[in-house]
Amino acid sequence: MSDRPRKVLIVGGVAGGMSAATRLRRLDESAEIVVFERSWYVSFANCGLPYHVSGVIEDRQALLLQTPESLGRRFGIDVRVGHEVVSIDRDAKRVSVRDLNTDRITTESYDTLILSPGAAPFVPDIPGAERALTLRNIADVDKMVAAVGRRPHTAVVVGGGFIGIEVAENLQHLGIDVTVVEMADQLLAPLDPEMAAYVAQQLVDNGIEVLTGNEVVAIGEKTVTLGSGDELPADMVVMSIGVRPDSHLAKDAGLEVNGRGGIVVDEYQRTSDPDIFAVGDAAEKRDAVSGEAAMVPLAQTANRHGRLVADVIVGRRTTSKPVLGTAIVGVFGLMAASVGWNEKRLRAAGRNYRAIHAHPGSHAGYYPGSEALHLKLLVDADTDEILGAQAIGKDGADKRIDVIATAMRGGLKGADLADLELAYAPQFGSAKDPINMLGFIDDNVVNGQSELVQWHEVEAARKAGIPLVDVRTPGEFRRGHIPGSINLPVDELRNRLDEVPAGDLVITCQVGLRGHVAERILRQAGHQVRNLTGGYQTWSTATRPLAKPAWTESPAEEEAAR
Amino acid sequence: MSDRPRKVLIVGGVAGGMSAATRLRRLDESAEIVVFERSWYVSFANCGLPYHVSGVIEDRQALLLQTPESLGRRFGIDVRVGHEVVSIDRDAKRVSVRDLNTDRITTESYDTLILSPGAAPFVPDIPGAERALTLRNIADVDKMVAAVGRRPHTAVVVGGGFIGIEVAENLQHLGIDVTVVEMADQLLAPLDPEMAAYVAQQLVDNGIEVLTGNEVVAIGEKTVTLGSGDELPADMVVMSIGVRPDSHLAKDAGLEVNGRGGIVVDEYQRTSDPDIFAVGDAAEKRDAVSGEAAMVPLAQTANRHGRLVADVIVGRRTTSKPVLGTAIVGVFGLMAASVGWNEKRLRAAGRNYRAIHAHPGSHAGYYPGSEALHLKLLVDADTDEILGAQAIGKDGADKRIDVIATAMRGGLKGADLADLELAYAPQFGSAKDPINMLGFIDDNVVNGQSELVQWHEVEAARKAGIPLVDVRTPGEFRRGHIPGSINLPVDELRNRLDEVPAGDLVITCQVGLRGHVAERILRQAGHQVRNLTGGYQTWSTATRPLAKPAWTESPAEEEAAR
Repeated sequence: MSDRPRKVLIVGGVAGGMSAATRLRRLDESAEIVVFERSWYVSFANCGLPYHVSGVIEDRQALLLQTPESLGRRFGIDVRVGHEVVSIDRDAKRVSVRDLNTDRITTESYDTLILSPGAAPFVPDIPGAERALTLRNIADVDKMVAAVGRRPHTAVVVGGGFIGIEVAENLQHLGIDVTVVEMADQLLAPLDPEMAAYVAQQLVDNGIEVLTGNEVVAIGEKTVTLGSGDELPADMVVMSIGVRPDSHLAKDAGLEVNGRGGIVVDEYQRTSDPDIFAVGDAAEKRDAVSGEAAMVPLAQTANRHGRLVADVIVGRRTTSKPVLGTAIVGVFGLMAASVGWNEKRLRAAGRNYRAIHAHPGSHAGYYPGSEALHLKLLVDADTDEILGAQAIGKDGADKRIDVIATAMRGGLKGADLADLELAYAPQFGSAKDPINMLGFIDDNVVNGQSELVQWHEVEAARKAGIPLVDVRTPGEFRRGHIPGSINLPVDELRNRLDEVPAGDLVITCQVGLRGHVAERILRQAGHQVRNLTGGYQTWSTATRPLAKPAWTESPAEEEAAR
Repeated sequence: MSDRPRKVLIVGGVAGGMSAATRLRRLDESAEIVVFERSWYVSFANCGLPYHVSGVIEDRQALLLQTPESLGRRFGIDVRVGHEVVSIDRDAKRVSVRDLNTDRITTESYDTLILSPGAAPFVPDIPGAERALTLRNIADVDKMVAAVGRRPHTAVVVGGGFIGIEVAENLQHLGIDVTVVEMADQLLAPLDPEMAAYVAQQLVDNGIEVLTGNEVVAIGEKTVTLGSGDELPADMVVMSIGVRPDSHLAKDAGLEVNGRGGIVVDEYQRTSDPDIFAVGDAAEKRDAVSGEAAMVPLAQTANRHGRLVADVIVGRRTTSKPVLGTAIVGVFGLMAASVGWNEKRLRAAGRNYRAIHAHPGSHAGYYPGSEALHLKLLVDADTDEILGAQAIGKDGADKRIDVIATAMRGGLKGADLADLELAYAPQFGSAKDPINMLGFIDDNVVNGQSELVQWHEVEAARKAGIPLVDVRTPGEFRRGHIPGSINLPVDELRNRLDEVPAGDLVITCQVGLRGHVAERILRQAGHQVRNLTGGYQTWSTATRPLAKPAWTESPAEEEAAR
């Protein structure tokens, strides 16, 4: 590079692009930095958009974290909103830019180009699709606010992922009758079905209709039509079935793009052109579990990679880390969080994994306000490497997933979770924290003291004639149990060993703890025993259809009565 | 060992002892396990005791997690409450036990002995000491409940550590005028003074008087006398200045005991007698930062080591991990948490450390309800190894300390915190989580892009004639600034470079973020710059005397008015 200041152009002024721009300025006062943003806003709070629809985030201004003016003042960055980069001339190292105010196209040269175009909500090509709202940027949220201002009675949210669930909750807060339609058999694909079931139930309990295994094939004036032929009333339709990388610019410029439309980058976030970088939802990531290419549209990663590109541009040899994809969503006060791979994916990939379920309290049970936590840990059955985790609960689910995400980054094994020293006072945790409990359970399996069976393996065991022994109290057993199981309370087991069927056994209790005590007694009495991980709690959640809520009022009345 | 079942005696039936007993039963159905507990209760919730005094934990029964009967039923453990082991005959491998009901002494032989005697509150030998209450077990809490039943108007809590603060809060909830007297210049020794200041202010804001640098030299009928000669009204006195290992039994038996009374153990928790193990508050630990011996009286560690001893007894070669001493306390809804070493200790040990302060929101600022978090990270200045952290805040302080504790266990460096993928939705965190922010700041120092100065170094810099430039807005500057600083707003800096004093500079802003932007501008303009970590927020908290609360009603009236 000559003495001339470097000139860096950035396409996209939200998370990744703006992190790159501001970091680059801090590293290089002299650089000429120009950001082109197609929309009329930069650095807005994408993740806050659903909450502005309902007014939880009341002030629209709160979503606009920066303006072109504030960025100019503080960072000397030339931010041009309403400017769309329409083509890249890689040989000449310049881009063509359309000013959306005037439709005039100009060109701008670069030394380095950073692409941070993001990903766009995917809208399937079905009749009436043009009537569907989506939620990506400020213009979208303005449209949605206008739509709810027309006082719709009914809404259909197509897609039960993170954004779909957030939109559904916020529309319900406004008194709209909301139905979530999801093509898969469960909501929230990052979760396994027995964990996603809590989320579906939470939606139903709060007055939202959930239709899984369904798809919208047409959108009418005031209805949607499902694949089954059924019609649903829908004054409003929101499409949130996923996003697609906005990578046409890269593709048109001949940059390497993967099969899912992701711009291929190396560990420096460099594309197949050494002068062009890509970050954010449009850029390919490396998956931390498999090391393979992945698309992970998350704000944290976009920000981090934007920052990294600035470092690389000024000559620092720093590389991006493989992504774990840690994510969380709030569902009417319930948190659903996950990190790494789920069981579905591990099974599909043929990995030899171990799944552990636990249902501890969010804090010590003797202190008021402890809430149920539902945890799932996935480890490599051979190496004990942590592969993923899921957590559902009203309190502390975020904390436990953050701890496991950190443990994964630190290379801790599943059994190492037993030794983590987590901050304990009775209002914040337990002397044996839920995380420690996962570690203890895993450690028991690693050391051959316990063998687990999964909720979805119970049926096969039953068919193979293996007796299922439920070691809860008779009262608990009466209130519900796995069909075909026999009841032998753990506290009576030592005196009733002669009643235990000979040979292999599957043991269950409510959550797996007493089952483990029984397992140990029976193993030492010569039985081959497997303990149902997560116990009746996991099994019944996984196999139970959605319960309808107890109340019958309309959601709005219910809300008012609270 | 012969075919005869092993016989294991356990002294102490709370955390460590009972974890050992129940784990041992799960591993060995045949073992004879006898637990001797001097008090009348086992497995009670030590950490809940302060909260029963106020009735936050209303039901006394809730504190009693297990009974001798329940442990007998489930685990076949012979639990003898009201039994004190008075001596150990190591040659004969037997103990003498006094039945506190009858005062009769019997002997009991063992193959293995586990000592889990705990630690007792230290009560100094001052006049009237016998009138002081302490809080260690159920008998103590019963006494304290009886004492508050006599409707005291005033209470003095001696010692501002974790338990002292919890007791003070709970007494205040009952409408008692509480004064905390602490000998040191700050509360909560695990914190550094500028962090502990938030805790003191929180107590004062909630109507508790805090006297640091003071000591109680005598306890009268209705008063205490301070070292200064002043008297304080004290219908009730609680002594919570620390605990001492209850290790006399071990000492009398000739087991090795360290200078602080801790029973010396190896990594298998084995004492100097191979047939005797020790766990819990009376046993010596290994410090994770220094590798040296330490006393860490925490429930989590006691439980973990109890479990481990059972493993070792059945022949598993598993070893205890060095302890980080992660701890937390709630203070009227504020959390104060810490892990590892603090700055005071690092300085005293002559370590070359780096301290980083940050004051982010607990979650995204644009989502309602974000609370201020005050974070401090300590890393090795040479290796970037994480040495400790502290967090104060109404929300999410526990989570951040747990993440750092996990990072420490995983061997992550300070700069690695930048790359942690933590669960983000706007109600739970930020796209750049507070933990990531600490990592970014540290990474900037590691890579020479930033140099930090501490709040306690500002005065020396001033004396050395180094100009202090405050880059906040004039309005912020007017509301309070460090004496002698000059105001040059960051957004005007590029145009006013000629006004910046030549040579070395110290920069400050409100929390350190804008300071860093200014630092980068000025460094590239040729200045030698250090940025005040934590900014004016840290400096002013560290140097400001406790503010009296705005209200003047009595605490009880205030409480009623809320």
